[in-house]
Amino acid sequence: MSNNIRVGILGATGAVGQRFVELLQGHPWFTVTALAASERSAGKPYAEAATWRLDTPMPESVKGQVVQPCVPGLPCDLVFSGLDSSVAGPIENTFASAGYAVISNSKNHRMDQDVPLVIPEVNPDHTAIIPHQQKQRGFDRGFIATNPNCSTIGLTLALKPLADHFGLRTVMVTTMQALSGAGYPGVPSLEILDNVLPYIDDEEDKMERESLKLLGVCDGTGFKPASMAISAQCNRVHVQDGHMECVSVALEKRADTQDVIEVLRSFTALPQELDLPFAPRRPIIVRDEPDRPQPRFDRNVEQGMAVSVGRVRPCPVLDFKCVILSHNTIRGAAGAAILNAELLQAQGYLKRDR
Amino acid sequence: MSNNIRVGILGATGAVGQRFVELLQGHPWFTVTALAASERSAGKPYAEAATWRLDTPMPESVKGQVVQPCVPGLPCDLVFSGLDSSVAGPIENTFASAGYAVISNSKNHRMDQDVPLVIPEVNPDHTAIIPHQQKQRGFDRGFIATNPNCSTIGLTLALKPLADHFGLRTVMVTTMQALSGAGYPGVPSLEILDNVLPYIDDEEDKMERESLKLLGVCDGTGFKPASMAISAQCNRVHVQDGHMECVSVALEKRADTQDVIEVLRSFTALPQELDLPFAPRRPIIVRDEPDRPQPRFDRNVEQGMAVSVGRVRPCPVLDFKCVILSHNTIRGAAGAAILNAELLQAQGYLKRDR
Amino acid sequence: MSNNIRVGILGATGAVGQRFVELLQGHPWFTVTALAASERSAGKPYAEAATWRLDTPMPESVKGQVVQPCVPGLPCDLVFSGLDSSVAGPIENTFASAGYAVISNSKNHRMDQDVPLVIPEVNPDHTAIIPHQQKQRGFDRGFIATNPNCSTIGLTLALKPLADHFGLRTVMVTTMQALSGAGYPGVPSLEILDNVLPYIDDEEDKMERESLKLLGVCDGTGFKPASMAISAQCNRVHVQDGHMECVSVALEKRADTQDVIEVLRSFTALPQELDLPFAPRRPIIVRDEPDRPQPRFDRNVEQGMAVSVGRVRPCPVLDFKCVILSHNTIRGAAGAAILNAELLQAQGYLKRDR
Amino acid sequence: MSNNIRVGILGATGAVGQRFVELLQGHPWFTVTALAASERSAGKPYAEAATWRLDTPMPESVKGQVVQPCVPGLPCDLVFSGLDSSVAGPIENTFASAGYAVISNSKNHRMDQDVPLVIPEVNPDHTAIIPHQQKQRGFDRGFIATNPNCSTIGLTLALKPLADHFGLRTVMVTTMQALSGAGYPGVPSLEILDNVLPYIDDEEDKMERESLKLLGVCDGTGFKPASMAISAQCNRVHVQDGHMECVSVALEKRADTQDVIEVLRSFTALPQELDLPFAPRRPIIVRDEPDRPQPRFDRNVEQGMAVSVGRVRPCPVLDFKCVILSHNTIRGAAGAAILNAELLQAQGYLKRDR
Repeated sequence: MSNNIRVGILGATGAVGQRFVELLQGHPWFTVTALAASERSAGKPYAEAATWRLDTPMPESVKGQVVQPCVPGLPCDLVFSGLDSSVAGPIENTFASAGYAVISNSKNHRMDQDVPLVIPEVNPDHTAIIPHQQKQRGFDRGFIATNPNCSTIGLTLALKPLADHFGLRTVMVTTMQALSGAGYPGVPSLEILDNVLPYIDDEEDKMERESLKLLGVCDGTGFKPASMAISAQCNRVHVQDGHMECVSVALEKRADTQDVIEVLRSFTALPQELDLPFAPRRPIIVRDEPDRPQPRFDRNVEQGMAVSVGRVRPCPVLDFKCVILSHNTIRGAAGAAILNAELLQAQGYLKRDR
Repeated sequence: MSNNIRVGILGATGAVGQRFVELLQGHPWFTVTALAASERSAGKPYAEAATWRLDTPMPESVKGQVVQPCVPGLPCDLVFSGLDSSVAGPIENTFASAGYAVISNSKNHRMDQDVPLVIPEVNPDHTAIIPHQQKQRGFDRGFIATNPNCSTIGLTLALKPLADHFGLRTVMVTTMQALSGAGYPGVPSLEILDNVLPYIDDEEDKMERESLKLLGVCDGTGFKPASMAISAQCNRVHVQDGHMECVSVALEKRADTQDVIEVLRSFTALPQELDLPFAPRRPIIVRDEPDRPQPRFDRNVEQGMAVSVGRVRPCPVLDFKCVILSHNTIRGAAGAAILNAELLQAQGYLKRDR
Repeated sequence: MSNNIRVGILGATGAVGQRFVELLQGHPWFTVTALAASERSAGKPYAEAATWRLDTPMPESVKGQVVQPCVPGLPCDLVFSGLDSSVAGPIENTFASAGYAVISNSKNHRMDQDVPLVIPEVNPDHTAIIPHQQKQRGFDRGFIATNPNCSTIGLTLALKPLADHFGLRTVMVTTMQALSGAGYPGVPSLEILDNVLPYIDDEEDKMERESLKLLGVCDGTGFKPASMAISAQCNRVHVQDGHMECVSVALEKRADTQDVIEVLRSFTALPQELDLPFAPRRPIIVRDEPDRPQPRFDRNVEQGMAVSVGRVRPCPVLDFKCVILSHNTIRGAAGAAILNAELLQAQGYLKRDR
Repeated sequence: MSNNIRVGILGATGAVGQRFVELLQGHPWFTVTALAASERSAGKPYAEAATWRLDTPMPESVKGQVVQPCVPGLPCDLVFSGLDSSVAGPIENTFASAGYAVISNSKNHRMDQDVPLVIPEVNPDHTAIIPHQQKQRGFDRGFIATNPNCSTIGLTLALKPLADHFGLRTVMVTTMQALSGAGYPGVPSLEILDNVLPYIDDEEDKMERESLKLLGVCDGTGFKPASMAISAQCNRVHVQDGHMECVSVALEKRADTQDVIEVLRSFTALPQELDLPFAPRRPIIVRDEPDRPQPRFDRNVEQGMAVSVGRVRPCPVLDFKCVILSHNTIRGAAGAAILNAELLQAQGYLKRDR
């Protein structure tokens, strides 16, 4: 089976949609053949419909592509969804029902009991729920697969090797999240200049519940969440891209700091084994300097697909503490969905001749 | 005994020294009669020696005062020390030995077994160590008293009523600290623009050890630290003034969120009872909004001397979590020392006719 | 005639409206008796209708005041208008027609040939157009008076004494304007972080045309603009409050730098003579330091009502150049309108018993 | 003659030195064979001596290179100088005297009457002064060539085609310059947060005098400055990289806006003709959008070597105005010097077998 797959982007003009457009340029397997957005944008060339907000220029190849409405009939085999959560739920369902593989970054279906919430390095086997989902929902060949919230991905990816080696008992995390996580227009400048916002709507709940699903077990017909205790506090800070997370962890088994560092540093998983195009060579980069990682300097490591971990040290209360950084719109959103699609392709879930 | 006390400022040209100058303007008890700084500044009028960095203008009354060197002989009864920790230790000792009350913001003597580390709302009785200190060090009427590190003050002040009512078992804190905490020139703009620094030298240790001394017991000849477990993670963020702290706490006794809020909100202590000039009417302001406190909007409440607490809510791991904000150079530094001096005056430790 | 005047605020929940509320607290002549805003806010208590965005807390006295719709019938003698320009035009006209003095900060009527555009230190005599306006528009006792755009005020106020003493031939100005000038939500943080926006809609035109009207002549039935040449370039920078302007000027008469400084420094005008409550003692503060004024340090001088001028030096092309700073939402908006109202009261244009 | 040239970097650990290291990676003609810095750094591996401040990681190839002192004897044919101006003057002279081609970014020799100040697109013929310099200073094969100040380059490069086609009569420029222009540690964060600095030491003089030399004439034994009038006002703003300049220009010949745009857009020069490795394909990018260029979005166009010009429009005072953006540490510093070296190589000024 050839790897030449036609993909569409739902919500193509939005913040996440633009990242999809940027990151899919030159992808070895996926070719963007459809850009879809709201009625307001439909019918216009992409260059006119989208106010481009990324630092890199808009790819020439999409400038003239005409934006289509978000209804089935798009000329593609799978759709990436960067839709706003206010509309994503039913649209994604409609596309799956019409036979499309829906690879979604939206929160709407993440916690559904028949929808996989996947990080390929963490729980690639959770895609095994897909046949059950198709049966449950009466989907023929379509399905919905989701990636977690941006702040959850960095945390859970860094925790995975520790869960495997030592078991996780308790996780306490405080985030300092970037402005791009709020989309566009997002946070007004007058709110964040010389300021910190100690609240992000629903974010703490998302981190707590999604982590448990990700690190839990899928038995083919449902999910059993992990049993660890987790508490999250989420803040918005004056940074463009890159979520920082201060984490303290208690493990099931005894492990000293050097053990933890070793396990983090040597971690690789299925995406690396399969050599998926968007898989970072090293999913976790451990830094030894006392003051790294930092968002501006480290968010783009491995094309923004690796997680950086630093300051691994003993915690006077739990077992160890550390700082985690991940690029929230690449590893934490569009890149996450693309890697999920690659995994699903490698696993044989993507059927073409719709 | 009259309340007309002549005070000197050691390190008067530095960041903390400038705050002393600003805050002591018009003080009802204290009159600034001596400004002292390094040899480089000595002999110059203050307006020339100090590059003023505060948003308010330099008070007219100090502009012409000639800066003196930091050696005893200053025409005053007590000295506030905003000296850099690289030189504060021996200078402060020399002044105390020469009969001055030394009210220090520097870290050098904070953990000394015969030096009180005081927040007037938290442990005003710890000043009882002073006679012991004088005897130990052969001081006649002079002594050294200190206030804690800026990030410790907000935390410990907010914890105090909970310690009293419920007992503290565990405290986990992650800070997002303002740039002014690093003094001047401090953090280069190229390091913090679009960035977070996940490390502040010695800050986590200071928070952990100073909190235990503050919440511990003084028996007149030494200190017994509190027995709670505490873990701190400290970060620098792009904010001018105001340290934010995300805190999770486990209590000895059961208490629900409403109990915690009630105890925080109704807290007053000795400084309020004594009606000390720098005492905030309410030391702790509890906010009900989901997204407050915020540094830019809340740091100046009660002239920067109150601590704001928000988002008090249950913690899935410990008992409750919340956000604490305090003004790091007022409540957390110069204002803290001034309130300490007021307490010491009220307690009768300040003798005049040196 | 007593100075106890009841005032209303149109657009009271918006950015400029909030400044009106803040600045009018404790005003010796004006008492806020009506708060009006859009239909969406009408009927709610102010504390609920307005999301307060200022660093100072919302005044207690307005919290419970019920917001009313922007239609005549408000219990007051004059209205301050901070309405959005998309609606200000007809609403202001309706209020004036109903007998209210309308003191507007909106741009809609500024360039009308029968409406005074006034800075009290610059052209207090332009209010003489008011009887003509009333006759033209069939207003009984009501009228409309306006203040200029925020970026125009700092410039024109600083130019006024030079126009009087030396005559103005040419003015070239490049602005670096604060974010609060764009209102709320205004500029998205993702647009201005690590960035400069070289464009503000209609701003350059406003600066050019309003300056000419302000420095021109009113003959009682119309206006003759000043004859100087002026060119403006306007930028948005990462500053909360305070517009900076780099200016080069050619004069009609010869003057050296010292002459210019002297004339600026010694300037006072009618508001100072009348000792109006909002009149700064010195309308223009000249700074001698090489690197002042700066927004964060100098915008609040004289309660934000003075303009700071620095770096006055020869220009190799025109005669001299300098930097001008003014607080854009105080001197440049709400404070400007209040000073206009005070002037109109002193001139006898405000009639009470409507 | 082969293009395999060994280059050294003087001041290799500093801000400009690091850009040299970054940009010279993989250069087709130049191989970095020597890294030199102050005595403090000499003897250490580069990875230890330099605190790397760029967003891209330090190249592996230089990490182990041992830093040498800045004295002749370095194993290379030419040296790039990113030395601080406090020491650059005599060191550069010593190297030239010892036979090295010295390609300097420092200001010390820029205005010397026998030293070429060059932008390859602007005045490549000014290198003809080199034989005269060598004779004057008794240099055998060595020489000194310089590039202008970062803020001058963007301006002069954009003006060049206008000078050629229409003649320049008057230029007025106001800059908004990035923080990286001040080097490291540079501007303290407490000075620039929520602020603009209206002063950069010597910057306005540099812009005015260097522009005239660049656009002037070299007759082989000296320089005749251009005769235009120029006035500069320089400001520091809260931006990491990318200098913005608001410019008004009067031309000798009549030209309408469309003529100006056409001439800017079609400009190419010798570096493009020679296809030099660091030459941007289009040295000047003209933007049609009303609000571009902007630093964060446009500074990296053509690898940071092109200048962006936008908002070309009539000026009510002079002939036209526009906004110019250039990357201050690439096109404005290290990249400028590298392009100069490429030009000198193409012109045959670089001799190898020293």
